[in-house]
Order: sequence, then C-alpha cells, then structure tokens
Amino acid sequence: MRDVLPDEVALRDWAMAQILAVYRRHGFVRIETPAVESLRLLLRSDGGENEKLIFKILKRGEKLTSAAGPDDLADLGLRFDLTVPLVRYYAHNHARLPQPLKAIQIGPVWRAERPQQGRYRQFTQCDIDILGVASEVAEIELILATTEALAALGLKDLTVRLNDRRVLGAMVAHCGFDPARAGSVFIALDKLDKVGRDAVAAELRAAGHPDDAIERLLGLLASSATPVALRALVGPRADEAVWEGLRRILDTVEAQAAGRFRTVFDATLVRGMGYYTGPIFEIQHGDSPSSIAGGGRYDGMIGKLIGREVPATGFSIGFERVIGILVERGPAADGERVALVFDEATTALGRVLGLARDLREQGKQVLLLTRSRRLGKQLQELETRGFRRIGVMDADGSVEWRAPRTGGTGGTTA
Amino acid sequence: MRDVLPDEVALRDWAMAQILAVYRRHGFVRIETPAVESLRLLLRSDGGENEKLIFKILKRGEKLTSAAGPDDLADLGLRFDLTVPLVRYYAHNHARLPQPLKAIQIGPVWRAERPQQGRYRQFTQCDIDILGVASEVAEIELILATTEALAALGLKDLTVRLNDRRVLGAMVAHCGFDPARAGSVFIALDKLDKVGRDAVAAELRAAGHPDDAIERLLGLLASSATPVALRALVGPRADEAVWEGLRRILDTVEAQAAGRFRTVFDATLVRGMGYYTGPIFEIQHGDSPSSIAGGGRYDGMIGKLIGREVPATGFSIGFERVIGILVERGPAADGERVALVFDEATTALGRVLGLARDLREQGKQVLLLTRSRRLGKQLQELETRGFRRIGVMDADGSVEWRAPRTGGTGGTTA
Repeated sequence: MRDVLPDEVALRDWAMAQILAVYRRHGFVRIETPAVESLRLLLRSDGGENEKLIFKILKRGEKLTSAAGPDDLADLGLRFDLTVPLVRYYAHNHARLPQPLKAIQIGPVWRAERPQQGRYRQFTQCDIDILGVASEVAEIELILATTEALAALGLKDLTVRLNDRRVLGAMVAHCGFDPARAGSVFIALDKLDKVGRDAVAAELRAAGHPDDAIERLLGLLASSATPVALRALVGPRADEAVWEGLRRILDTVEAQAAGRFRTVFDATLVRGMGYYTGPIFEIQHGDSPSSIAGGGRYDGMIGKLIGREVPATGFSIGFERVIGILVERGPAADGERVALVFDEATTALGRVLGLARDLREQGKQVLLLTRSRRLGKQLQELETRGFRRIGVMDADGSVEWRAPRTGGTGGTTA
Repeated sequence: MRDVLPDEVALRDWAMAQILAVYRRHGFVRIETPAVESLRLLLRSDGGENEKLIFKILKRGEKLTSAAGPDDLADLGLRFDLTVPLVRYYAHNHARLPQPLKAIQIGPVWRAERPQQGRYRQFTQCDIDILGVASEVAEIELILATTEALAALGLKDLTVRLNDRRVLGAMVAHCGFDPARAGSVFIALDKLDKVGRDAVAAELRAAGHPDDAIERLLGLLASSATPVALRALVGPRADEAVWEGLRRILDTVEAQAAGRFRTVFDATLVRGMGYYTGPIFEIQHGDSPSSIAGGGRYDGMIGKLIGREVPATGFSIGFERVIGILVERGPAADGERVALVFDEATTALGRVLGLARDLREQGKQVLLLTRSRRLGKQLQELETRGFRRIGVMDADGSVEWRAPRTGGTGGTTA
C-alpha cells in the first residue's frame, strides 16, 4: 500500500468527479458498502484466485480466546472487489432500492498480493452495474456510459471489444471439447494475449483436453472470424437469441458512438471471472494490449443469495490504469491558485485575511504563507509548485504581484 | 458497519464536495494514506482508548504459521483516526511535500466499538491540518476555513469555543493540583458536560486529588471567567505569550466572522486527546451541547517520529454528526433528474438513446427505463423517487411528458 502525494490526489479527485458526473447523467446512483465484509461471504463468492488474497481480520475479545483453532481466528475480511459486496448489498436492501438498480461504486479494495511494479495492495475500483434488466439495453447503456466517462477524461482512440460467453461455449463444443469442462478452457484462453498460442496449447494439453480440439480452437480464433462467419460455423450450438443480441449491441452502440470509439466483435475475448453468463466486453486504449475497462453479464449470481433470479450486468473501469495514463499527461486542470506571502511581524493579519477572502470569493485557491528568511527561494518553490500568481504583501498592505517566469522572460511586476 | 443507500450517498457526496471546495480555496491540498497501517505504529501512538478498538489484520502465510503466540498473530491494523496516519505520512514523505503542509484528509476510519445508536464501526473523518506553522496564524486559518466549510453546508448558528491547554494547566496548578498529574485532571474535566459536576468531583477524589483543589477548580470553572479575569487570577503560571496568543486568535477570528459565527473563550473546554499542547477549539451548532468539529495544537507529536520538532495544528469536522443534521433537512440539491420510459418491443432504441443524449448534453440526469406492465405504478414510483420530469415514449417516437403531481392537481400533460 502506498501514500498518495497531493498532486496525484488532485488528479484522482478530478478524474473521479468527471466519471461520476457522466454516470449520474446516465441515471446511475452511487451506493456505498463497508470496506469490511463477513469472511464467510467473501470465501463463498466466485472470486477465484482473489479469495486467496483476502486480508483477514482477527476476532476480538471472547470470540478470539474461544477460537477453535488456527483456521478460526478471523471472522471478517477486507473486500477484494466491489461485485461481491454489491450482490450482498442488493440482497440485503433490495426492497429499499430503485428497480432496476443502476449503481455506481467507487472505492478501495484490498488484495494481499506480493508487491510489484504498478500493483498495490490497496487500489481503487470504479464499477457500474445494472441489476434487474435482462435485455441487451443494459449492455448498451453500460458501454455508452463508460465510453463517455473515459472520453470525459480526454481518452481518445478507444476500442470496445465484444464477445459472448455462450458464443465461446459454442466454439468450444464445436471444436470437440467436453462442454462440461468449458470453464477450464476459458481460463487458459484468457491468457492468449499474455503468454501466446503455444503456452495456451500446452496448458490445455496438460489439462487433458484432446489435441485435435485444441488445434481446431486455436485455428478458429486465429482466423479472426466475423460474427456472421462464426455463426455459420458454430451457430446451431448457440441460441438464435444470442447472435441477435450480439448484433443488436454492436449495431446500436456503433450508431451512437459518434466517432468517440470503435466497436469490434472479438471471438478471442474471454474475461477472467468465472461468473459471466452472456455478453462480455472490454475497452482498449490506443495500441496498448491491456484493457482499461471490462465487464459482462452475470445473471446467475444474485439468485444464489436471494433465491430469485435477478439479471445483472456490470462494467468496471481500471481506475489505477487510467490514472497511470493521466499521470503521464501531466497535472489536473485545477482552479487558479494564488499564493499570498506576508511578514507576520509587520503586516496586519486582518489585511491579509481580507484580501484572501476577496480572492476566494472570485473562486481562486488562496494559499497564505508567512515570509521566509530566504524570500527568493520561497518564491521559486511556489512557482515550481505551479502557482500562477504570487503576491508579496508589504508592511503598508500593498501587494507586489509576481508573474511566473515563462520562457525566461518574466520577473517582477507591480 | 452499514450500507449507505443512494439518497444518503448523494447527500454525503454533495457535503464532501462543498467542504473540499472551501478547503481548496483556502490553499489546502488533499492527501491520501492507506486504510491499513502497521500495527506497531498504531499501538505506539497517543490514541488512548482508541488503541483498544483497533481491527487487527491476521498475518499471512509463513509469518502466521511461525507466529510466537496469541499476541503475535497480527501485523497490520485498520486506522482508527486520520492523525496517526498523517504524522506517519509526513515523516515518510516530508521531503516531497510543500512546506508548510496544509493538508486535507477525508476518509473512513474503523473502531471495533460495540454497535449502538448512531455509532458505526466504520465512519468518515474529515480533517485539515497545518504542519510547520508555529504562530497562531495556523489556528486562525483552521477556524476560518472550517467555519466557512460548515456555512457552505447551510449550517448557521455556529459557536467557536476556544481554550488553551496551557491555561488549563495554569488553572490546575493554581488550584493546588500536582502539575505532574494534570493529564488525569483534564480527562476527568472533559466529561463535565456529559456527567455533571458531582460525577467529575467523585472521579477526581477517587484518583486521589486533594478535596480543596477539586472544590477550587470546579468553582473557578463555574464562574465562567473571562480571559482577562482568569489571567489576573492564574496569569503568572502561564507564559505571557499564551495569553497574547489566545487574545490574537479571538480578536482576529471575531473580526473576520462577518456574522457567520460567534467566538467565545471557554475555560471549561478540555478536548479528550492526550497529545494537545496549546490552543484547543470546538464548534457547536445551535443549542446542541455536543460539538460538530474540534481540534487543537499538537506540537510534540511529529518530533517523536522524525527527531526534529515540527509545529502542528489540526481541526476535524465530525462528518457523521454533520450528515445527521443534513439528513434531517432533506435531500441534496441534485441536478435535474429526468426519467424516460419506453416500450422495448415497439420503440426504436436509437430514438430513445438520441433523445437521452440530447437531454444529457443539457446537463440533465437521464434514467432510461423499459415500460413495465403496470405503467401507472411505475410512474408513481418515479415521482416518489423525486423525478421532476417523466417522459413516456410512444412507438412513433413522440414523448408524452408528465408533470409531477403537486398539491393533488397535476396529471398528464403533452
């Protein structure tokens, strides 16, 4: 975990505010769940590998002293994603929530991973979910809202990749895999981008899948099949409605894109999580192979908790990855920042405070500083920190405004 | 811990944005520390009772299996306030931070308290701190910024109460207490508001303080002494600079208040934390005896960690208490919310999305909903949720706008 310095916090706050404003205009409402959930809930979720990375919280008092053994020491855990808490939240509060629920969640999650470059044990996730909409209108809304949110951050050159778990299932069955073992095929396929074709083939062989099925599947994926071609080939193994749904999402989203992004069908898109049941999607930025947002339909998940099927789709922005891109671009467009330097010994404080108040009423951010012994160095530091206007107040209350040096010309102006 | 429903989240987000905007205009910058800190750090802080309420995080892997015993199971803990992490953050990053540091922190903290009415195990704190300013300008800036932030939330009738730990120390010595045991006197005195004079006297007697000292102190406090009277009485026991500093804060803040708040000296103000060393202050709202913000100077604290004295003052808004007041007043002034209801079977989705886009470009929050079988009930629910404009789209793309019922007259308008 790490400290965040002021400049990055300002950028993060700005990005969060942009994303929230777009999502709110799309009718989403923000909800909040606690950072801590019952360990039992976290452990019985479909979180796969993430479950091993839970920070567990020690029982307290009597509960701890009467713990049955080393596996009974903890009763709570820090959430490792926002989907498990969302489903619990919905199960708990659905009678008091709007139906359908269009929810925004932005907040930290924790994973006890080995620290490595660019990965932190606490990081922010930013999800929207629609609970209670079975039709593709949900996917379309998620994709339009999220591409608009990313565009609001100044991210251009976005590509939405789209696939469907049921199309993947049809391909896997068509190629001769055991449909009951489709899950393990998906997990291997998901690594295609990262480890390459040979490593995926090796993993599938090691898992005991037939050689000819592996060959056919990798050949099929390499052919960059269009939905039409793929449908002709493996079509009968998936419902007509699956293909129609995919086409509807592609066509509608494309028509609304207005040049902000491209939309492509991608038969190689798999997504890691085990719980997806329908359309899945990711957004890529520029030439980077890794996605900056991903999501899909997970219709089965809420039913497990509340015993009544509630269709669900979600889209998650890779907030930390997006911030990484924005940090490279430079600081957030902040309000105008003014520094007022004064000598506490000679200047009436009321005068300084009065001027500061006037400037604040104009919306400026005003930093008061007592004059340091080395004024030149102090002023230089303020310029480095990005202060556009720096005023030095004299004993008589008059202010000498200094323009920032631009291109070496600048200097002191009255 | 608890879930927060959408309406309260909207109110919390609004309040946070108002507070942040005011603090930024006052030159403060937001910083962020992780929720999890080393347990050693948390346990060696001056957090008093709070240390007993730490949620401890179980060690992981090898570290857990080789734990020395039941007291060696945890290595991390959830932060119980924002001051301990701030001091650690400053010690860790001060070379990369602006000097002086004027920091904002808003975020959750955790305490393993027994759940009770209005107290949660996860709650939000909202602090500003000035590190590196020894003069009373720091106190003045904190008080002006915080009263302005509270005023921005619509909170009127604010009273700032001010005292100084060194004045309290002088009073305690003057009344005949052992100055070395002043801390235990402060802790008892802090409860005066809640438990009353007799209970405080009993606690002081039980702690072995002399009867006549207790009588004198409680008499002195009941006399509502002004700084001038108090100074005449116990003055020589505190530095001249202490009295001058208090007067400077009172006079300057009063002159800047512009009717937004009152400022009073209050010799009975103590504040609970052990680490305060100078001026202490609280803000009361209306007639409520409990404060909605509190803070003070804690000059000794950072030196303990970095071996160099850094003067420090902080002011913390009781965010949950403030939200409690705001919730009673009603929902946040949100942007205009529009609901568009359409029949997926008969209406072209592109048409709905096009209209929604137009409305969003006007800044409206647009919720799309497919028409439910019981349209009347659906519309009624939307009205209840506060939608001012509700449009029902026909198959031909025309929209029937419904005005909300106000005073029973309303109905359907084209």
